[in-house]
Amino acid sequence: MSEEPASGPKERPPALRAGPREVWKKGGRLLSVLLAVNVLLLACTLVSGGAFNKVAVYDTDVFALLTAMMLLASLWILFYLLRTARCPDAVPYLDAHAGPIWLRGGLVLFGTCTLVMDVFKTGYYSSFFECQSAIKILHPLIQAVFVILQTYFLWVSAKDCVHVHLDLTRFGLMFTLTTNLAIWMAAVVDESVHQAHSYGSSHGNTSYTRLAPDRHSHGPTRVGDTTCSCSTSVCQVFQQGYFYLYPFNIEYSLFASTMLYVMWKNVGRLLAAPHGHSHGHGPSRVSLFWETFFAGPILGLLLFVVGLAVFIIYEVQVSGEGGRTQQALVTYYSFNIVCLGLMTLVSLSGSVIYRFDRRAMDHHKNPTRTLDVALLMGAALGQYAISYYSIVAVVVGTPRDLLAGLNLAHALLMIAQHTFQNVFIIESLHRGPPGAERPHTPPKEPCQGLTFANLDALHALPGCPPTPSLANPSPAGPPEAVTMILAPRGHWRRRCLKDISLFLLLCNVILWIMPAFGARPHFSNTVEVDFYGYSLWAAIVNICLPFGIFYRMHAVSSLLEVYVLS
Amino acid sequence: MSEEPASGPKERPPALRAGPREVWKKGGRLLSVLLAVNVLLLACTLVSGGAFNKVAVYDTDVFALLTAMMLLASLWILFYLLRTARCPDAVPYLDAHAGPIWLRGGLVLFGTCTLVMDVFKTGYYSSFFECQSAIKILHPLIQAVFVILQTYFLWVSAKDCVHVHLDLTRFGLMFTLTTNLAIWMAAVVDESVHQAHSYGSSHGNTSYTRLAPDRHSHGPTRVGDTTCSCSTSVCQVFQQGYFYLYPFNIEYSLFASTMLYVMWKNVGRLLAAPHGHSHGHGPSRVSLFWETFFAGPILGLLLFVVGLAVFIIYEVQVSGEGGRTQQALVTYYSFNIVCLGLMTLVSLSGSVIYRFDRRAMDHHKNPTRTLDVALLMGAALGQYAISYYSIVAVVVGTPRDLLAGLNLAHALLMIAQHTFQNVFIIESLHRGPPGAERPHTPPKEPCQGLTFANLDALHALPGCPPTPSLANPSPAGPPEAVTMILAPRGHWRRRCLKDISLFLLLCNVILWIMPAFGARPHFSNTVEVDFYGYSLWAAIVNICLPFGIFYRMHAVSSLLEVYVLS
Repeated sequence: MSEEPASGPKERPPALRAGPREVWKKGGRLLSVLLAVNVLLLACTLVSGGAFNKVAVYDTDVFALLTAMMLLASLWILFYLLRTARCPDAVPYLDAHAGPIWLRGGLVLFGTCTLVMDVFKTGYYSSFFECQSAIKILHPLIQAVFVILQTYFLWVSAKDCVHVHLDLTRFGLMFTLTTNLAIWMAAVVDESVHQAHSYGSSHGNTSYTRLAPDRHSHGPTRVGDTTCSCSTSVCQVFQQGYFYLYPFNIEYSLFASTMLYVMWKNVGRLLAAPHGHSHGHGPSRVSLFWETFFAGPILGLLLFVVGLAVFIIYEVQVSGEGGRTQQALVTYYSFNIVCLGLMTLVSLSGSVIYRFDRRAMDHHKNPTRTLDVALLMGAALGQYAISYYSIVAVVVGTPRDLLAGLNLAHALLMIAQHTFQNVFIIESLHRGPPGAERPHTPPKEPCQGLTFANLDALHALPGCPPTPSLANPSPAGPPEAVTMILAPRGHWRRRCLKDISLFLLLCNVILWIMPAFGARPHFSNTVEVDFYGYSLWAAIVNICLPFGIFYRMHAVSSLLEVYVLS
Repeated sequence: MSEEPASGPKERPPALRAGPREVWKKGGRLLSVLLAVNVLLLACTLVSGGAFNKVAVYDTDVFALLTAMMLLASLWILFYLLRTARCPDAVPYLDAHAGPIWLRGGLVLFGTCTLVMDVFKTGYYSSFFECQSAIKILHPLIQAVFVILQTYFLWVSAKDCVHVHLDLTRFGLMFTLTTNLAIWMAAVVDESVHQAHSYGSSHGNTSYTRLAPDRHSHGPTRVGDTTCSCSTSVCQVFQQGYFYLYPFNIEYSLFASTMLYVMWKNVGRLLAAPHGHSHGHGPSRVSLFWETFFAGPILGLLLFVVGLAVFIIYEVQVSGEGGRTQQALVTYYSFNIVCLGLMTLVSLSGSVIYRFDRRAMDHHKNPTRTLDVALLMGAALGQYAISYYSIVAVVVGTPRDLLAGLNLAHALLMIAQHTFQNVFIIESLHRGPPGAERPHTPPKEPCQGLTFANLDALHALPGCPPTPSLANPSPAGPPEAVTMILAPRGHWRRRCLKDISLFLLLCNVILWIMPAFGARPHFSNTVEVDFYGYSLWAAIVNICLPFGIFYRMHAVSSLLEVYVLS
């Protein structure tokens, strides 16, 4: 989904620029993408090799690679910060869309959790220092330095459109992005191995050929060793703690990656003078919470609390002894069906409201938004795939009981919810700021075709919208009159949209928490495991679920933007 | 890699258009992409489920889905052809870049081979008609109808920029595209299963847990059955034949997909009047073959013939008895190393020649080229991944013999060759037509800064290039004089580039033939199988190799374009 070629007011035409422009921007991009692809594939090979017990790639190899990459990326970040601090001409433009405050805030939050995780990891590995290789303790320490440095770098530089050392900057940004993706891959694989391990220990290892077999011999989950075991209670706490903090590390890497990608897209970009920034997104953060009908946040909070309770009950019942798994699954699926059904309806009504909305579509080039849309669509593929595999298993497979029915309804609603939520969010992100009418649509009202010399006469006519040229207020003219005329009609729609976005936001948070902190109905439920066999189903879930979890997180940040914009 | 927002002469600005324009083009695209994603994932689920023996999804389910999809797509194609034939205003613009003659020619060629394959398939399944479900014979027949209809449709409509029923057309195109991708997936999976089967029967089934286990019970490769077996010699010929024709079916689906994607991008696109089409690519197909130094085609043909011989020797030695596999692998790798090394050097020298080239970069929006670049970069990932896994296996693993060294060199050269060839092709595709100088680069010659009232005086000065405005000949003025001045300097470069592209083209053809027709050194060579285990290594190769094969095919068509353009 590439952006349209909009020669909007924000992109300065090449003829007007002052400095020498790159002859071929794509050439520089191409080389940096090639570097990133190669480094990423090397990391991918080692990480996936390290996940398999039979393969002679050890986790120390992975740690060594990641540590080296983080060190290199840190050096480049330092170089960048020093250079831009000493050369004020290096960043002549700032992209107002890049690095909004909620993204940077989320980055700091997740970065802090990652630091806590690093402390836990260091503590865990220090507990049996004598029989560990040094890289296992060095790795979390270097990671902490990298996280602090990168968070500061992204906080101050996320909006930069760099104009010096273009190719070097592209290489540096792509390398840092690759580092983050490699960390993400390693974390996801590590977590999947951990999940498979706990599943295996609760179901008995013998009956399944595992995707990621036992890692007693050489794994970061090293829970029992012949000489060095994690036996002290402090060590156990460290181990438990760092696995619960993995989701934050995963999200941190993805947040940083998206911000780095936008910076990379902005290298060498030419924008109009800074006054143009007031146009577009971002200025309407005047009133924050009292512009809703309160129905959305209250219903959302209710679902959030109920969801938390359901999650805790589910975890207790599934991990406990006895045949209470069935009951836990019924509770879990029922809650999810209600939640997803409500979200689908609400997203649909949001799209219906937009059919009556007359705000102009924003066609301007905006790398941040293009990336948001691509990530929403791409990340939804993960959950789509899981749902389709579930549907096929239930429909083709034999079981015809309550649980199979719930599973089917859950999978179908999951697809519908992702689809309609994506449509709603993407349409919201493309709406212009409030008060800007759609210039291209000829009004359908009876005043169509008449010409008014006196514009006041037009406004006096009932059912006639203001002319587009008036409704799109230019910074020079006084737009108050138009806004006043629009306000009574637009207000309930805006309130509705704000309610809808807040409701969806809260629902997405609870639907993020459940899988991110370990709910795996995919394996508690035996339908798919029996149908596909454990190894195939584990491969499907372990590859697709991280994208599904990332989708929730990303939808939350997009919905926050929708809330602020509408 | 999205196109830059070039407000070039080809894209008509929105203010000038006559008919009503879509309010939000992305909205229509979004919905059709969502449809395509959902249908594709459903097909993917069934196809991948059908590939596994343990899963209760049978190949008849897959055939039924594919047949239904092809019928629906055929109906839509008929509807489209009838509508555009009856309504001349439906297609006001043609995209000159879309559907070049070599792409359409390739489509017809591969389509013909697919028809032959369908005949073979029908003959094969008819041989034991009594114990087959009807869908297995219906499927190739419907596929033949679909291929004929689609080839005709793409031949006549590939350049269309449709402007009626926008959303319906998008849905139809996306659905047809999805159908082609589903056929592609099914063919790739079927071929992988066939390969795994023949590998298993030559190595003994017992020692490996297979990705795609034995399909004696219910597979399209049904070679032996309890009651119905393919025992007659005609049936054997049919079976052998249709497996050798699979590569063409795979390429046909991918070719059709790329053309459909470009048509989908062109729905609702506004272009300038047709006279603008003479600018840009395509006009320089005046003299075809005698513009080279003959070194490229001769060396390429030599490598092609040697490669064919090596391939046949390899196949005979590997499939034969005795320990001649080692010798076959040494021959195979040696040839590949020489070939890849030469290709790398030649691509590099092509890029070096471009450093001295002063033609302007073409920044215009061009969906065909954007897609070409994305496909080249994306498809290369497959071979990259295989190479990185090989490198890790050789470097980390223990063997230190000749074969391991050859394997390592082969993998490294494969990465280098893909990288440099991509850089060369992508830069070539972005060059303007010959004779158009780069307008943004200020000339470094001493005449810089002087103003000439008499342009003839400028041309008379030694070492002074013609002014950009002159060198970029407008259709109105007579460009002969400028071309004559440019000709002596540009000629050897153009010849060199044509040699290079022809050489690379022939090398890519031979490197396509080898894996497409069954050379699998990945499994004959035991390094990776021993290191990763058969199931993991088979999964890697079976997922990545189809992309690698497609890359070769796509590089051939791109190099043909480079040859014509340079």
